[in-house]
Amino acid sequence: MSHPFDDALALSRDAEGVYRGLAPQAYWNMVGPFGGTTAAALLRAALLEHDDAVEPVALTVNYCAPLVQGAYAITVRTARAGRSVRHVSLEMQQEGVIAATATAVLAARRDTFSHQAAQMPDVPAPEQVPASNVRGWLPWLQRYEFRFVRGEMRPQPQPYDTPRSAHSTLWIADTPPRALDHLSLAALCDVFFVRVFQVRGTLVPAGTVTMTVHFHGTTAELAEQGSAPVLGVVDAHTFTRNFGDQIAQLWSRNGRLLATTTQLTWFKE
Amino acid sequence: MSHPFDDALALSRDAEGVYRGLAPQAYWNMVGPFGGTTAAALLRAALLEHDDAVEPVALTVNYCAPLVQGAYAITVRTARAGRSVRHVSLEMQQEGVIAATATAVLAARRDTFSHQAAQMPDVPAPEQVPASNVRGWLPWLQRYEFRFVRGEMRPQPQPYDTPRSAHSTLWIADTPPRALDHLSLAALCDVFFVRVFQVRGTLVPAGTVTMTVHFHGTTAELAEQGSAPVLGVVDAHTFTRNFGDQIAQLWSRNGRLLATTTQLTWFKE
Repeated sequence: MSHPFDDALALSRDAEGVYRGLAPQAYWNMVGPFGGTTAAALLRAALLEHDDAVEPVALTVNYCAPLVQGAYAITVRTARAGRSVRHVSLEMQQEGVIAATATAVLAARRDTFSHQAAQMPDVPAPEQVPASNVRGWLPWLQRYEFRFVRGEMRPQPQPYDTPRSAHSTLWIADTPPRALDHLSLAALCDVFFVRVFQVRGTLVPAGTVTMTVHFHGTTAELAEQGSAPVLGVVDAHTFTRNFGDQIAQLWSRNGRLLATTTQLTWFKE
Repeated sequence: MSHPFDDALALSRDAEGVYRGLAPQAYWNMVGPFGGTTAAALLRAALLEHDDAVEPVALTVNYCAPLVQGAYAITVRTARAGRSVRHVSLEMQQEGVIAATATAVLAARRDTFSHQAAQMPDVPAPEQVPASNVRGWLPWLQRYEFRFVRGEMRPQPQPYDTPRSAHSTLWIADTPPRALDHLSLAALCDVFFVRVFQVRGTLVPAGTVTMTVHFHGTTAELAEQGSAPVLGVVDAHTFTRNFGDQIAQLWSRNGRLLATTTQLTWFKE
């Protein structure tokens, strides 16, 4: 039986550089599917078009319009194919509407000077942290396991009198378990709840406008992680005039930085 | 007399959505012009195409190939024009080669809940910090004033035995002074020297592959800053297998977060 994440990313090649997929109902959010699967589907199209020894190093996805149920098409265009670095431009369309644009950088990585300046925070192992009960929640939330070490969002009847910290630290994993790869890592970069909810205590209309992921873990390093939970450390700098940011690190179980990500979220009121 | 930065961004409208400019010799770097002017020229083309009440909120620039001396063309395509948020895709070409791709998000921003969670570090005023002597350095370096509070790069004859901190804090300003706007702010996001130089102590072949800027300061807030120096706080998480990252905050003189930015830099050896 295939994993729902792989089903969600099923793409068929149509014409040269055009891939067709279906908006994944198993990952449905309030309006349209979870943005993480959209990001992963775009990245998958780039990798299908460049299926030699390159791996993803960067991805920016701009969420232009919500996907609706049904088919979409991804167009892949290679802007520049250098010897070791490739630049790819992507566009996801549905019924003539551009739902997302993206750019991806793929590279053939080689051994060089190596130094991880940042350190994973000291946290309890995932087995020691209870998983949030997501039964009956939105479909996409049921596709993940959330084990909050700090900063679990608890919606309040009224906004907090003074804004609270935007920080959360949590172990996150696919449900059911799935071996980590760059596609699931891209999706994991978007699992953090909108920081403005966290800071205000209440839900407001909000949505990710743009997300950037830098992949630091190589294919081999991601394979070492297997299906173990990834540690997410997320925070925000500011919320002002309809937009708030988010910045996060994703760590392997053994302290290797797998990805860093930042996004800008639109919110109302 | 016009400012060299404005000269560098001079664009003429050619056909619908096509703008022509010249690679700016006044901002020349080792190979091609400074990436900050490339980012600003792309953003300027997006703003010329959307000249109503929208302002930039996000920009991602992918550096595909170095610009050479001479003319370039920027193609602007609007992927999605919502009521308050616009998504723009850009491409810079020179003699049939794509030098850069970019995506920009522009928005009509309104008053909302506002909260700046991050705080500017406590540093001496710019007048109290000596400016680096850039006379005779590369042209682009002479277009900026650098006042290092911490972490000034001093190239060593040999790499450090153990990697040093990637952190720098510095006041930065255009030379000659120029009132801050989103264009110069975008360029300022790229003035930080490649972090791998800082960490290793020596120069190696390196270049920015992709840069993302989130603009938190509005047009009115940037105007308040005038031509005063901006505080840059820059660091990196990791360097591994040809790529290192960079993350930075740009602060107004009075402690307002104007922009956050992250980039991925390719390096050799």
